[in-house]
Amino acid sequence: MELLKERILKEGKALNTEVLKVDMFLNQQVDTELIDAIGGEFARLFADSGITRVITIEASGIAPAYATARIMRLPLVILKKAVSIAMDDSLIQAEVFSFTKQKSYQLTLQKEYIRPGDRVLIIDDFLAMGEAAFGAISLVERCDATVGGIGAVICKSHQPGLKRLLDAGYNVQALAKIAEMGKDYIRFEED
Amino acid sequence: MELLKERILKEGKALNTEVLKVDMFLNQQVDTELIDAIGGEFARLFADSGITRVITIEASGIAPAYATARIMRLPLVILKKAVSIAMDDSLIQAEVFSFTKQKSYQLTLQKEYIRPGDRVLIIDDFLAMGEAAFGAISLVERCDATVGGIGAVICKSHQPGLKRLLDAGYNVQALAKIAEMGKDYIRFEED
Repeated sequence: MELLKERILKEGKALNTEVLKVDMFLNQQVDTELIDAIGGEFARLFADSGITRVITIEASGIAPAYATARIMRLPLVILKKAVSIAMDDSLIQAEVFSFTKQKSYQLTLQKEYIRPGDRVLIIDDFLAMGEAAFGAISLVERCDATVGGIGAVICKSHQPGLKRLLDAGYNVQALAKIAEMGKDYIRFEED
Repeated sequence: MELLKERILKEGKALNTEVLKVDMFLNQQVDTELIDAIGGEFARLFADSGITRVITIEASGIAPAYATARIMRLPLVILKKAVSIAMDDSLIQAEVFSFTKQKSYQLTLQKEYIRPGDRVLIIDDFLAMGEAAFGAISLVERCDATVGGIGAVICKSHQPGLKRLLDAGYNVQALAKIAEMGKDYIRFEED
């Protein structure tokens, strides 16, 4: 998505080989027009995937996932990040290790919000190691639903998440794929 | 907003005089069509308030605030909840006590995302004690910006937040005002 790549080059800030700050238009300040275009692009890419529900992970995934779900006219389900194991048996959880924060959290879902037979589209802001995506997948599959697609706004394809998901057979679409980056330097993959 | 009140009566669950669960359409599962209508209603209510920027607090405020900002064609800024005082001087913070969670957090903003002279609309899912709203107001005012309005999807007007904000002179609009509630019982204020 050219519009997105231009914004990343213009306003994003690569701090090192792993951390890209896009607070200016995606994470803290949200450019609603750009995010709406991102939602439209995901809706187009997954139009033929039979999706019945969009899910995301709080908090940075919510805006692009909402935009996608709105355009696809589907409900959105937000997975929560909890610190401890829930005791309530209406909840299911998957442990996810965050490399950014160097600690684990429990990805948490109220089971009733993903139904058996649902075909789920997982949308998130970043795809890097794939830990969060695999956590979300495990929750979806434990609800007897299937993953119909995974959409990442930005994929750091020099990190292993994309390859792991593709190797596992999932349909993954990323709107901007970073081939390599370093301090103040970003190179995208060729389309 | 009748559509919202109907959904609260149909799918919301009052646990006691203070806790209303609306996970089914607002907090965990998000009914994108309803949230879009909520955004349209806030856009209408604040159309003449000279708003230049919409802000909200992660995570449950993001969907309705995004919907509002999109329809008003304005940027959205998401205030973060941090646990500790930030050392980075590009950040400003306000301590907020959460009565729901019985602990404090630091409402956190990168200063550059609210500009001097901005006229800010604060959107959140709930207004109860008003602690989060006053925290957000203090951050806005420390950026030499003004608060042009405060919109709450649901206001528990039997709790003091609404009165405190009105007494302080703010333009507050709530789409559903709960006059009283108790276990499995909800009564709205008359319009």
